[in-house]
Formats: sequence, C-alpha cells, structure tokens
Amino acid sequence: MPFELTEDLVNQVESLIQNADDKALQKLLKDFHYADIAEILDELDLDEAMYIIKLLDSETTADILMELDEDNREKVLRNLSAKEIAEEIGELDTDDAADIISELPEERQQEVISQIEDEEHKAEIRELLAYDDDTAGGLMAKELVKVYETWTVAGCLRRIRGQAKEVTRVHSVYVVDKKNRLVGRLSLKDLIVAKSDQKISEIYISSVDCVNVNDDAEDVARVMQKYDLEAIPVVDDNQILLGRITIDDIVDLMKEEAEKDYQLAAGITSDVEADDSIWELTKARLPWLLIGMFGGIGAASIINGFSDAMTKFPALLMFIPLIQATAGNVGVQSSAIVVQGLANDTIDGKLFSRLLKEFLLGLVNGLAIAAIVLLISHFVFKTTYYESLTICVALITVIIMAALIGTFIPIFLDKRGIDAAVATGPFITTSNDVFGILMYFVIAKLILGF
Amino acid sequence: MPFELTEDLVNQVESLIQNADDKALQKLLKDFHYADIAEILDELDLDEAMYIIKLLDSETTADILMELDEDNREKVLRNLSAKEIAEEIGELDTDDAADIISELPEERQQEVISQIEDEEHKAEIRELLAYDDDTAGGLMAKELVKVYETWTVAGCLRRIRGQAKEVTRVHSVYVVDKKNRLVGRLSLKDLIVAKSDQKISEIYISSVDCVNVNDDAEDVARVMQKYDLEAIPVVDDNQILLGRITIDDIVDLMKEEAEKDYQLAAGITSDVEADDSIWELTKARLPWLLIGMFGGIGAASIINGFSDAMTKFPALLMFIPLIQATAGNVGVQSSAIVVQGLANDTIDGKLFSRLLKEFLLGLVNGLAIAAIVLLISHFVFKTTYYESLTICVALITVIIMAALIGTFIPIFLDKRGIDAAVATGPFITTSNDVFGILMYFVIAKLILGF
Repeated sequence: MPFELTEDLVNQVESLIQNADDKALQKLLKDFHYADIAEILDELDLDEAMYIIKLLDSETTADILMELDEDNREKVLRNLSAKEIAEEIGELDTDDAADIISELPEERQQEVISQIEDEEHKAEIRELLAYDDDTAGGLMAKELVKVYETWTVAGCLRRIRGQAKEVTRVHSVYVVDKKNRLVGRLSLKDLIVAKSDQKISEIYISSVDCVNVNDDAEDVARVMQKYDLEAIPVVDDNQILLGRITIDDIVDLMKEEAEKDYQLAAGITSDVEADDSIWELTKARLPWLLIGMFGGIGAASIINGFSDAMTKFPALLMFIPLIQATAGNVGVQSSAIVVQGLANDTIDGKLFSRLLKEFLLGLVNGLAIAAIVLLISHFVFKTTYYESLTICVALITVIIMAALIGTFIPIFLDKRGIDAAVATGPFITTSNDVFGILMYFVIAKLILGF
Repeated sequence: MPFELTEDLVNQVESLIQNADDKALQKLLKDFHYADIAEILDELDLDEAMYIIKLLDSETTADILMELDEDNREKVLRNLSAKEIAEEIGELDTDDAADIISELPEERQQEVISQIEDEEHKAEIRELLAYDDDTAGGLMAKELVKVYETWTVAGCLRRIRGQAKEVTRVHSVYVVDKKNRLVGRLSLKDLIVAKSDQKISEIYISSVDCVNVNDDAEDVARVMQKYDLEAIPVVDDNQILLGRITIDDIVDLMKEEAEKDYQLAAGITSDVEADDSIWELTKARLPWLLIGMFGGIGAASIINGFSDAMTKFPALLMFIPLIQATAGNVGVQSSAIVVQGLANDTIDGKLFSRLLKEFLLGLVNGLAIAAIVLLISHFVFKTTYYESLTICVALITVIIMAALIGTFIPIFLDKRGIDAAVATGPFITTSNDVFGILMYFVIAKLILGF
C-alpha cells in the first residue's frame, strides 16, 4: 500500500511529540520508509522535527536528512553539533556525505570533517569535496566492488562478501589490473553462473563504459541514459578507477535540470516552489518582470516617437497588441525547439541551414495568419486597403524576424558557453515585443508614407 | 573513449555500403554499441539503413531498432516482412517487443504475433499488449527472477542460473508463495552472503515496494524516484506477481514528460524536434499562434470600442504594450509554479490560501513595478497626474488578476482531470493579454471618466 501524507498522520505525530510519548512514536515510525518520514518532518515545526531526529537512531536519521527539503535540512543541521553531524555522516555513502558537508558554511565543514571517526571514510569524503559539483567527480561515490583480474571466481566471491556489506547496491563488479586501472566489468550474475575455479581474467567483459572524473555531469547523464546504464565507473586520466555513479543520482539530476529549464522558460530565476515564502517568490519573479517592464517602456517610447502617424492612421494602433503577442509567441516557440535540440545534442553546427528553415517556417505561418487577419481587418474593422496591407506585411515580417531571433540567440549563447535555457521565456519575448512594434511602425511608414 | 557521430564516419559507412563491402562494414560496426549504430542509421537514407539491418545479425538489429528515431523505425518496419519483424522481436525483452508491435498498424500486429516462434514469448507479449500505455502494465516486462519461499539458498542459486540467462539485468530476486503471490525480495548480494543450506523464507526481506498493474505510469515514476529504486515488481489486485519495471524505462518516461511539458509551456502542441520537416513543425506551432491571433483580434476590438478615449487621452495608448507584456509574464510565472507543484504533488487542496498568497505576491510585485513606471511616465513621458494614476492602478490590478488567473486555471483543470501543463504558455498569456487590456480601459474610464 503506498504511503500517503495525511493531515491526520501529521496531527498524530505532533500530539505524540507533545506528550513526549517516545515509545509510541518509535513504534509508529518504525514501519515507514525514511523518505516518508522526511515528508512528515517537512510538515512539522523545527522543534518537532529536531525531537524526532534526536529520538531515532542515526542510521535512519542520516537517510532522512538526505531526503529533507533543502531549506529544512539547513535548519536541522544548524541545530546539530559538529559531532552529531559527523555521526550522521558516518552512516551515509561518501557521495551523500560530501553533499551534506558542502551545504554547510565553510568554517563548519572542517569542524565536522575532523569529527568523523572512520579515517578511510574521512579521507574519501575529503577527496570528493575537491571535485566540482557539476562534474562526474561531484556525482560519484567511493563505494564500489572491485576485483583484480588475477583472482579466481571463488576467491572473488569470498572477497565480495566482505566489500559488498559496505555497498548498498551492487550493480557491477569492476575488474582492475594491479595498478588499479579499470580493465573491465562483471555482473554478479556472471559470477554466479561461472565455475568457481575460473580466473576473473577469463570471464570478465572488457568493454566497459566509463567516464572521466572531470566530465560534465550532464554528459554523464546523457551517456547513462543512452546506454541504459544503472551505474558507471569513474576513472582519472590514467584510467585508474576512482568511484562510481549510480542512476538514482542521475534521475535526481535530470529532474532538477528539467525543472530549472521549465522555470527559466516561464521567467523564474531561482529554484522556487509553490510553498516558498512570498519574499523568496518575489526574488525569483521580480527580475524578469522588470525586464518585461523595460521592454514595455521601450515600446512606449517607440509609439511616442510615431505619435503623429497614430493620429493620421488610428486603425494602426488597434493592431499593436496582435503584432506584439505574435512576435512573442513565435520567438518562444523557436527558442524552445533550439534549446531542447541543444540539450539533446541533436542540433549540428549548420547555423545557416537552420536559419533558412526558420525563415521558411516563419513564411508559412506568417502567410496563414496574415490571410486570416486580412479578412478580419477588412470586413470587421473596415481598414483601408493600404492599412490592411501594412498590417499583413508587418505580421509576416515580424513572424519571420521573431523566428530568426528566437533561433539565433540560443545558438549564439551556447557557442559562447552560456546555458541557452536563459534565452527562453521573458528575455526572448521582451526583445521580440519591442522589436516587433518597431518593425510595425517602420513598415507602416514605408507603405503609408507618413 | 566516448562515441562521437562524425560526418567522416557516416561517409565511411555510406561508401562501404555503395561498394557492398560487407566484411569491412561488419568489422567496422562490430565494436560499436547498438545505440551508436542506431545514431549512424538515423543519418542514412532508408535504403542504406535497410542494407545494414539485413547485414547484421538479428540480436544486434533488434536492439538497434529500439534505439532508432521513431519515424525512422516506422519506415524500417514497413520494409520488413512480418516474419522478419517476428524474428527481431524474438530477440527483445517482452516490454520492448510489445512496444514495437503496438507501433505497427492494427492488421499487421496479428500477422507479426502469429509468426513469433516461442509460444511463451508470444503469450507474454499478447498479455502486455492488453495493458494501457500509461499504466504500470504498459511499462513492465515479464522477464524477472522469481524464487519460492520454500527453496534453499543452494537450490535457489541453481535455479537462478537458469532463469538469469533470460534476464538482461538482475536487480532483485522476487520471492513468492506457492500461489505466486509476492511476499518479499532478495538481492543477489544477500544470496551470495547467505549460507547455502538456509531456507529462502529465513533470509528474504518482506518489505517490498510494488505497484499495481493498473497504476498510473507517472505514479510509478514518482515511487521509484522517491525510494531510489532500480526496479519495482508489478502485481495484480490479488498480489500475484506479473512483471517488473526497470529504471531505464522510467528515465525515458521522465525525459519525455519533461520535454512535453516544456513544449506545452512554449506553445508547441506535439512532440517535434528541430530536425522535423517544416510541415510537421507548422502543424505543431500554428495552432497556438492562431490562439494568440484571436487574442490579438480581441484586443483590437477592445481598443476599437474605446477609440474615443484614445483620441482624448493619447498618452494611454503608449502603455498598452507594457500592460499586455506584464499581464502575460505574470500569468506564465504563476501557472508554471502551480503546474510544477501539481506534478510533484506538493500542492495541497487549499485553493483559497494559495490564491491569497498569489494576491499578496501580485501586490508586492505590482507596487514595485508601478512605482518605477510612475516615475518614468511622469518625468519622461510627461503624463498628467490622472493619467499616471490610471497607469499605475491598472498595472497593479492587472498583475494581481494575472497571478490569480495563472494560479486558478491549472488547479481547476487538474481537478477536472485535465493535464494542467496545457494551461501554461500561449493559453494563459493570451487570456491575460486580452483581459489585461480590458481592465486597463475599464480602470481608465473609472479614473479619467471619459
């Protein structure tokens, strides 16, 4: 039966905390998965959450900590001593441990690390902290099962029994030579199926996908997804095995990236959720609204500059919203397709042919829309022949321009090494709005000659 | 060394095909992963791709087929006989086999299935085809490793050696009772670590996450992600073990969903890529542009209706683009946050408190923007006191309204069982554009009294 976070359950936990009924609390929470307990804790006050953290054993609370909402985790960590954090971290895999430590303020990090008792764990965490978050090194864990190619299957199984206890999930057994260089892999299935006196060198699979410790995290995600991998070993420039990355971290990464891109497209700058405070939400939303505002002021200046024309041809001004909306919509569509293409690596370098295609696409869409608008403006709004012509030519031109700008800007940013996703949303919309209105008046001037 | 698809490589393959140099082709392609070969095939003409499909053994080509671009796969399948397709399918896991068959035209499906030689495989594929694509049944494969709780560890390992050959990757061993009801799980690690004369019933883990065969695919994804699972067993209403779902399918599903939502937010209706034809792209893009167009026509009617006011207070018309852009941007921001919250299940049912929050948020953002616009309109555009007041009051009102509409519509759609993601992008933008302009004139009428 799936877990469901109900108000009743939260109330029950709260009242047990108020009554300090530790036994009932432990009994209630014992059967929940740590991810579910984290969901409950996210609903509680800090004091109540701390009560539960102190009550449960550190094996469980370490996992709960990892699953808490980032803001809540920060608060909980602030309420724990360096020694207490070190104890929690002792229970975690090295990658999770390093993630938690890197969230702490600089001066606390050293304090916590020095309190970790297991020297090997400590050294491994220190190693992981040195890698950039956005690289394979920042994603990998040191826990893995490693065998030497010279071992026998029987000896191997014996050793694996020892190593495997420390590794939560064994995906693959990595085979190394005596210099610790990765030479191949074995699945546990292969080991079970093999005869016990066979040498590892006889049965291992030498084609093993691996990534370099400095590879981009997004490239790692792409490789693991393409080849349907559940884990991938990480090596250094000399092919020496350093760690492994598991698919659950990649799943989290993909989700974060998708949400970030979605928010950028919608004009939200930082990672916020519906439940964040008004202040957090304002910080995330106001910057883009200000960009839109300056665009609006720019448009006002353009209209102001052409105010004589407006008095002579008042019909023109009715169609300003249409021109603006169309320019914005086309630009967002074009940029979204390019941004996705860049993310999936399906866009090759031929900028010119891509722009040509957008030009033709803009022409087709523009002609279709202009034809409808022509009929409506003529029959409904009774615009003159030249006015109608102006509106239609402007629409087609603006659609083509918006498509070209929407295509060009993300590709340009990407070539400069900037995340193209920032180019979608309000940025493209605003520039196309302003540019579209300017084009409209320029074309009107050419056709109507004011 | 990671695979890179270069023009040189594609040219090399093409010239080998032209020379019908089968040996060199086989030698070249032998070392590539099937996903890489699929990438090469996606670049070739259909004739060339068919040449390679016919050349390689069906074990490889079956996997290649799965990785091809959907359009290209359809073309290749159309060029294969029912018997040839059945052979390819014989090499695939049941879930992939069922996916390929379901892509075929109705009448060919039966023809292909009847040609599958392995009766068990045939029956399993038939079973899978009966489930809806969007459910756990549509995602699961029949391949899994199953043991009875009454077996011993040694007997179990012996049987697993048999079953495991058919299962590409063994994540977990599922433990069932004699009625085939799922009672628990074991990892291969547990089996290796256990003593060989122990009974399975003594060592298995009874807490096993599972999903019902009729569960929503998106719910399955949520469960697997939350609990960091690499595979999950699928059961029917009587807890009878039917199949299992692996994380690689969930990764693909998540990616598709994220891309679909992103495209909806950008106003693209069907799943298109930058490389699709102009006709495909037009079909995906034109519908939303038409919605935007009707919005623009609506705005034109409103302005037309207030044309007297425009002649009396020409300064008002300068700010139409600002009002429109701001309304659009705010609406998109609000709806994006709600849509993500709904997707992550982090939005609870309290509609009123959420609208109140958006109201306050709109007020804060509106006051900030209105203050800046007040200064600019007064000092730069020399608007009168009442005109400035009109613009500012309209801005604040429009921002609040847009935030409320952007919040309300997705929640409303979600309650009606409609995918809230369709509410983002042009739909929200257009309705807010039109509504914003209408509000602007109504407020102007109230303040300026024309």
